[in-house]
Amino acid sequence: MGYVKWNYEILDRFCQDVFETFGFSSEDSETIKDVLLTADLFGIESHGMQRMVRYHKGIEKGTIHPDAKPEVVFETPVSAVIDGHSAMGQLTSVYAMKKAIEKAKTTGVGIVTVRESNHFGIAGYYAKMASDQGLLGMAFTNSEAIMVPTFGRKAMIGSNPIAIAMDAEPYPFLFDASTTVVTRGKLEMYNKMNKPLPQGWALDKDGHASCDAPDVLANIVSKKGGGIMPLGGNCEVSGSHKGYGYGMICEIFSSILSMGVTSNSCCTFADKTGICHGFIAVNPAVFGDAEAIKAHFSQYLKQLRESPKADGQERIYTHGEKEIFAEKERRENGIPVNDNTMVELANLCAYLKLNFHSYFQDYELPKDSKFFGGNY
Amino acid sequence: MGYVKWNYEILDRFCQDVFETFGFSSEDSETIKDVLLTADLFGIESHGMQRMVRYHKGIEKGTIHPDAKPEVVFETPVSAVIDGHSAMGQLTSVYAMKKAIEKAKTTGVGIVTVRESNHFGIAGYYAKMASDQGLLGMAFTNSEAIMVPTFGRKAMIGSNPIAIAMDAEPYPFLFDASTTVVTRGKLEMYNKMNKPLPQGWALDKDGHASCDAPDVLANIVSKKGGGIMPLGGNCEVSGSHKGYGYGMICEIFSSILSMGVTSNSCCTFADKTGICHGFIAVNPAVFGDAEAIKAHFSQYLKQLRESPKADGQERIYTHGEKEIFAEKERRENGIPVNDNTMVELANLCAYLKLNFHSYFQDYELPKDSKFFGGNY
Repeated sequence: MGYVKWNYEILDRFCQDVFETFGFSSEDSETIKDVLLTADLFGIESHGMQRMVRYHKGIEKGTIHPDAKPEVVFETPVSAVIDGHSAMGQLTSVYAMKKAIEKAKTTGVGIVTVRESNHFGIAGYYAKMASDQGLLGMAFTNSEAIMVPTFGRKAMIGSNPIAIAMDAEPYPFLFDASTTVVTRGKLEMYNKMNKPLPQGWALDKDGHASCDAPDVLANIVSKKGGGIMPLGGNCEVSGSHKGYGYGMICEIFSSILSMGVTSNSCCTFADKTGICHGFIAVNPAVFGDAEAIKAHFSQYLKQLRESPKADGQERIYTHGEKEIFAEKERRENGIPVNDNTMVELANLCAYLKLNFHSYFQDYELPKDSKFFGGNY
Repeated sequence: MGYVKWNYEILDRFCQDVFETFGFSSEDSETIKDVLLTADLFGIESHGMQRMVRYHKGIEKGTIHPDAKPEVVFETPVSAVIDGHSAMGQLTSVYAMKKAIEKAKTTGVGIVTVRESNHFGIAGYYAKMASDQGLLGMAFTNSEAIMVPTFGRKAMIGSNPIAIAMDAEPYPFLFDASTTVVTRGKLEMYNKMNKPLPQGWALDKDGHASCDAPDVLANIVSKKGGGIMPLGGNCEVSGSHKGYGYGMICEIFSSILSMGVTSNSCCTFADKTGICHGFIAVNPAVFGDAEAIKAHFSQYLKQLRESPKADGQERIYTHGEKEIFAEKERRENGIPVNDNTMVELANLCAYLKLNFHSYFQDYELPKDSKFFGGNY
């Protein structure tokens, strides 16, 4: 699988045009695009351009409603519940996090839960919205069940990421991770490479540990059973019940406190995914001098980075550092997009009657590609 | 190592007398005792009677100040920061969680951070205080560094448990776990049994994975390096950076937002441990109908428990179930206390001039025990 690098500006213009052509306003297209391209800039390929096809399908199938607007259905000075009405997840989520931030600036804390939304991209984007304004930010989302609870053999919990961001010097802290040991994208990567899965990732349909990527993925797709282990594996000795517990924390702050659809029922409807989110913003100033707290945190992060390295290791990262370095490098040298994704973008252009080559000049689709034809 | 079972009432009377003899008021002794014995009732032996020796030593060495009172040093309607003044961790923590609950009942949310405290027992106790009143509760504490960050070889983060509790039918959800793969107590257990540690638990002084319990424990005690891996092990492929991230979440809500001592400096002072905590209470009513939310959550928990089991497994637990069954069984049949702990209690009686046999009738100390002598 080859990669081709594109300048940020090219992908930016392409995404803007795609979403406007789908019928989103210029401002909304800007928002969706920013969430997607931030993932690519951060080096989280799975959640960037690679996902265009998913949004394309969602709009085509009718699970994403481009005209829908999120609606506040319950509100207090510290909280809100939003019904996403199956609007684009990024739009509902930016709206919800803005509301949490507004509340945090007024009362000190804002917790906003969302039901009936759609896939929202990277959780870290929303946590960072808060930290960019000097607040502590957290974001949660449930998703189609993929995590098998400890001692189970059926996926009942989503990959359920939890993200947290807080400002610090010389750069913010940003942790964003699924509560499964890995996400489905990683399994797909191993499958494409014809490599056995690492131990401790996946379960077959009977709930046994399995390294057989094609079998595990086939069972997931056909809902025969099995799935991905919680962080901590599939036995208590390695902490399986802990990853399962973090998955539950995510479920509480998304589907439970919004009265929405739990992961085990997400994406089982014809006309909606039902995906739920949660957003928290906390103003550090309600704990004293916000600048002093930031300095205190920065000092601890520095101590972590400077602490002694394991034999053979050169550095200890604090969370969010890799993303910052990836962004710098990609803004300078371009964002790598793989050939499969380029084919998906060509199909998208054909569908929307956009001129693929006006964005991606001189790019030729691989000969064996699954391009469905038509003008693009 | 043998075990002997004691009725709850015997341990209750013993603990009450011990803490009153240490100089705590009757009410405060009651509080401390309830936290400790709840751990034993829940089957969390490491945090019950077994810890009496630690509190004994803390008071003797002067890191726990029996006369100190926690003080609110900053407060808003949704938050507070408490200086524990090195009072008994349980007393400061119950005080802090009560404050968080009070705020949650008034404004919807209460976040209380605590600095300069001491070991507080099980985090779940405080989370449960909130859920017992129909609120969502969370508790965090940092502790003496034992977790080695990914790619490091020096412990920089505590075992940093995160607990969350929420009411449900037929019983509440209660998740309470360290963010390390296991706690130090587990290493000590394997050491006592002369068994090699399971793979994926510990690191030697150079940061290599190690199954050598005596070596790892000796390095921890002498601060030569090494320690316990984060949940997810010591490499990114198994999610090490995630456990490390959850450890950081705990640190943020304890030491960072309280301007307290971070784990890497906890317990390095002569006159204090510096341990910090965090407590969150959220009123589900700020998200709509609290009863409906509880029913919705209960339904999901039921679906999890009833979902298909892995080959060879008989049941799937939701968090907190094991504790409920343990409590029922132990209230009926007694709480098992091991002989080593009994010896510690005998030493404690000798120190406090309490009559050991007035509580533990007919119990004989093992012949090779480390009883230091004196009247007891």
